[in-house]
Amino acid sequence: MKHSAALAALIEALRALPGVGPKGAQRMAFHLLQDGRPAARNLVQALAQALERVGRCERCRMLTEGSLCAICAHPQRDVGTLCIVESPADVVAIEQSGGYRGRYFVLMGHLSPLDGVGPEQLGVRELDAQLADGGIREVILATNPTVEGEATAHFLYELVRARGITASRIAHGVPVGGELEYVDGGTLAHALAGRQALT
Amino acid sequence: MKHSAALAALIEALRALPGVGPKGAQRMAFHLLQDGRPAARNLVQALAQALERVGRCERCRMLTEGSLCAICAHPQRDVGTLCIVESPADVVAIEQSGGYRGRYFVLMGHLSPLDGVGPEQLGVRELDAQLADGGIREVILATNPTVEGEATAHFLYELVRARGITASRIAHGVPVGGELEYVDGGTLAHALAGRQALT
Repeated sequence: MKHSAALAALIEALRALPGVGPKGAQRMAFHLLQDGRPAARNLVQALAQALERVGRCERCRMLTEGSLCAICAHPQRDVGTLCIVESPADVVAIEQSGGYRGRYFVLMGHLSPLDGVGPEQLGVRELDAQLADGGIREVILATNPTVEGEATAHFLYELVRARGITASRIAHGVPVGGELEYVDGGTLAHALAGRQALT
Repeated sequence: MKHSAALAALIEALRALPGVGPKGAQRMAFHLLQDGRPAARNLVQALAQALERVGRCERCRMLTEGSLCAICAHPQRDVGTLCIVESPADVVAIEQSGGYRGRYFVLMGHLSPLDGVGPEQLGVRELDAQLADGGIREVILATNPTVEGEATAHFLYELVRARGITASRIAHGVPVGGELEYVDGGTLAHALAGRQALT
């Protein structure tokens, strides 16, 4: 069955959302045009407004409305520690863990030459300028534990080392609360290799 | 971590989409504002346009851009058979099955007195007017096999019978391609009760 033009365009537009397939997009479109019209108008407005207002922090590239994000503008954050992550969602996750008081640098992706994502796209030039400025004592490489994330971490490690700054990589291992039985072999191997002495 | 106002508003607006929780909404928002800006602008436009253009078919209440939907306007559809469904997605599903050539009536919901959804909200008055018009020989009650769907079908059955028109209910039974072992008891009981003689 063919949808009318405006409906088909809406379904197609909704498919651009992450994790939304053709059936899910159709369900969303019907919901928005059926009972969800106030919510749909609200979404149009919120999305248009966010597109207009939300840009990137000029220091760490985090999504923000001002020129500096809340973390970079915060006077109590430790300016000597810089945590490099792939995406804004990673910043949110680390902030929620509550264990970090330094600043961030958000790559907005990882090295992926086939997709045309090189150091330039990840803001490595701006990052290097911050490293050159002095003041940063340690860089924590918190890219994802994927092939691309590891490659990106390795690339950044060389950059950080060239500036004479300490670099560290987040620990890979068994998730807290998990069961060894269900952990994959690669993670277990990392957990064993990275074992820590009990004191 | 607190999001900026425009970002928080966007995440909240995305949560109105069916099947989208707080984490999913945040992921969508970040995606739309990060790499997905062209897609986001497209979504704003498509949604605004659909809200403006897509209304309901004045005959069957299906979502459509004109005054009549493509099915109601189609000269080859059997006007003697009317299939009553809960939602536009059901129309799409039945059309894709390819086994139906009659018309539809879309309730846009089911009877749910606690939510304030009575016969009036489901367009029962318009439906009854169509039944009174004559020309309809059979009404197929294709509401969902849920408690509310069954109650709605029962209510409509009385209405259809009062007009002297044949009413039928879609068959409940074992899904084609399914395995008996994994079918729930209620469905199996229906499948047994509704068994058909082999000829």
